[in-house]
Amino acid sequence: MLVTTAKATHAQTRRHNNRLVLQTVYDQSPLSRADIARATDLTATTVSTVVGELLEEGLVQELGAVSTERGKPPTLISLNKDARHILALDLSRKVFQGSILNLRGEILHRQYSPLQNKNGKDALAVVHKLLRDLCQATTTPLLGIGIGAPGIIDPNNSVIRQAANLGWYNLELGELLTQEYGHNVQVVNDTQAILLAENLFGTYKNSSDMVVIRIGNGIGAAIMCNGQLLHGNGSGVGEIGHVVVVDGGERCTCGNDGCLETIASSRAVIQQAKALAALHPGSALNQLTQDGDPITIETVVEAFRLGDPVVEPLVTRLGYHLGNSIAHLVSVVGTPRILLCGGLTELGKPLFDTIRFETRRRCLTARLTEPEIGIVTLTTNLSDLVVMGAAATLLTNELGLFW
Amino acid sequence: MLVTTAKATHAQTRRHNNRLVLQTVYDQSPLSRADIARATDLTATTVSTVVGELLEEGLVQELGAVSTERGKPPTLISLNKDARHILALDLSRKVFQGSILNLRGEILHRQYSPLQNKNGKDALAVVHKLLRDLCQATTTPLLGIGIGAPGIIDPNNSVIRQAANLGWYNLELGELLTQEYGHNVQVVNDTQAILLAENLFGTYKNSSDMVVIRIGNGIGAAIMCNGQLLHGNGSGVGEIGHVVVVDGGERCTCGNDGCLETIASSRAVIQQAKALAALHPGSALNQLTQDGDPITIETVVEAFRLGDPVVEPLVTRLGYHLGNSIAHLVSVVGTPRILLCGGLTELGKPLFDTIRFETRRRCLTARLTEPEIGIVTLTTNLSDLVVMGAAATLLTNELGLFW
Repeated sequence: MLVTTAKATHAQTRRHNNRLVLQTVYDQSPLSRADIARATDLTATTVSTVVGELLEEGLVQELGAVSTERGKPPTLISLNKDARHILALDLSRKVFQGSILNLRGEILHRQYSPLQNKNGKDALAVVHKLLRDLCQATTTPLLGIGIGAPGIIDPNNSVIRQAANLGWYNLELGELLTQEYGHNVQVVNDTQAILLAENLFGTYKNSSDMVVIRIGNGIGAAIMCNGQLLHGNGSGVGEIGHVVVVDGGERCTCGNDGCLETIASSRAVIQQAKALAALHPGSALNQLTQDGDPITIETVVEAFRLGDPVVEPLVTRLGYHLGNSIAHLVSVVGTPRILLCGGLTELGKPLFDTIRFETRRRCLTARLTEPEIGIVTLTTNLSDLVVMGAAATLLTNELGLFW
Repeated sequence: MLVTTAKATHAQTRRHNNRLVLQTVYDQSPLSRADIARATDLTATTVSTVVGELLEEGLVQELGAVSTERGKPPTLISLNKDARHILALDLSRKVFQGSILNLRGEILHRQYSPLQNKNGKDALAVVHKLLRDLCQATTTPLLGIGIGAPGIIDPNNSVIRQAANLGWYNLELGELLTQEYGHNVQVVNDTQAILLAENLFGTYKNSSDMVVIRIGNGIGAAIMCNGQLLHGNGSGVGEIGHVVVVDGGERCTCGNDGCLETIASSRAVIQQAKALAALHPGSALNQLTQDGDPITIETVVEAFRLGDPVVEPLVTRLGYHLGNSIAHLVSVVGTPRILLCGGLTELGKPLFDTIRFETRRRCLTARLTEPEIGIVTLTTNLSDLVVMGAAATLLTNELGLFW
């Protein structure tokens, strides 16, 4: 168990009060100094001092006074959401996204750079190009740089332990970028970034327990318990896609056979759909790709919507295996809420019903906890979610918000 | 994410400093006031005040002065481990154990009361009898009562949500016992209690990430991540025994079919051994039970040690299924250490080797994290472990230690 060994000094108290006031303004602004004092239980003098410091830093601003029935009208304080901007990158898709965000996590600017199957140093060059372009696109002082990256990340040290698709192993990305750009850099796993975005800006703001599962070419879970994101310092927390669920199954990218990803990832579903299309010439899968287009997740979703009987068992199998893995996950962390994301979620209610059925059927904890199993709430644009979450890590680490 | 909304007041600072000094004395005593000041970074005046208060409460004591080369010899301070005693019960076995422990978690007294298949109010009467006997057996002021109970517990409210074997559902045991005995009561799940005992008093003292899996008639996991015990407020965290691992398998006590417990619990293993003994008259299982004794876990372990070929596949199957469930668990929480306990662990190295092999084989995270999979370290007497862990929750909640 963690033993607190730090001394509770005046400096700590001040930092704590500072955070408390900023968080209060962040959550409830506009509000007067008296409102802040009421909300925080701090004395008027302390609030006045802290607000003075925050005004000086430009993080909050004074709005006009509100008229009251009598007495001097109080001046309202609000967050100056554009006092600092954040550069954030999503490196989890084939086209990297770079964005500029404000302190509310609002995306002010997006640009893209296709990876074109590059890896290693070449992939890193794409990162640099995006960051240089973003630096040129803003004149606002920066809070820092947030990176959402695929694979196994040590977020404490901003090291990418393993991102197979990018050919990055033990890449000290944080230190590298800090040296190059002179800003604070936070690197976080892409699925964990999505969870942070949902947890800080989404419908389930400030939930202390939730899980996000991203189903793309990989399958990974981000897990928050007791208000803490499990990250395991690069130990592979949430790598549920790489557990063998079919003994002697197909070869996985991780080198193993029969992992969940060999059955339930986008890549696996497309492969299964191709095999089915070849066996069933009359399938909607073939009608939808008559122009020689390849079968994509969108094709599968559309064929399923059209009621193609060939696709139906594929969706059932998908739900069965996802439900099974989620049952194991729920039995371990007993979470009340699981949000899925990725193109396959477009299969909609029938897929979710199968997942829910299997999860409940296979797991006592799920019957007790009755976890909500749904879809992410903010947007289905995953790159936007990743940059929002990556930006959020800066808000936490640099401003002490949300912690 | 948890947002700190409390004010950092002087009272908080004092409480924090108090805990800090007590924890330092707990971990490092004997030591002088100057040693404490060095270890905590607190001023000599503050240390003096806090030590004064702790002396008054009797929690610490002054030892003789140590001789130094020159100057006034400093007085040494140490924990007064018998300043308070703790009553703790283990309700997870067929014979309830009641114990008296000191502030070091040392067991000073044990007594037992067989449950004799009682449940509901009758089982509760056994608890009362044990507690009354323990109260009579001690004259030391009590810190409180700790209860380690089977099933799904809400430790924040000390409510037993579901303990099927005892027939207790939503039993507000904490409130009930507080009213009856006038002491603070903490109720904790038995496996979580074992984890706390290992984490506070065992070889892996102060690990921030570890898992304990108890394999008895039930199978449950206690999980600590980032220094926090996952408890989920009664949501069924760690109920890995009740996940279906064999579709259409045998009926489980939870009403479902094919749960891990139907294959890998003590009860299931005994059942399998009985079936094998009936099929193989020459089996050591039969030779060991010639006197008409029933087959027990001890029989199975002994037959396995004797090299009985009938028992071998049973152990392999056990290791296979435990390894599979542990693989799922590791993929979720990526833990570096898993300690097993229960009679079946006596099957020793061959069982553990199979579990380790399956866990690694089935799970990328396990290959990255290489979790240690071993046996609990303090004692194989599980009731002792449970009462130690239950007592530890009092040390945390009443004295602010270990947090």
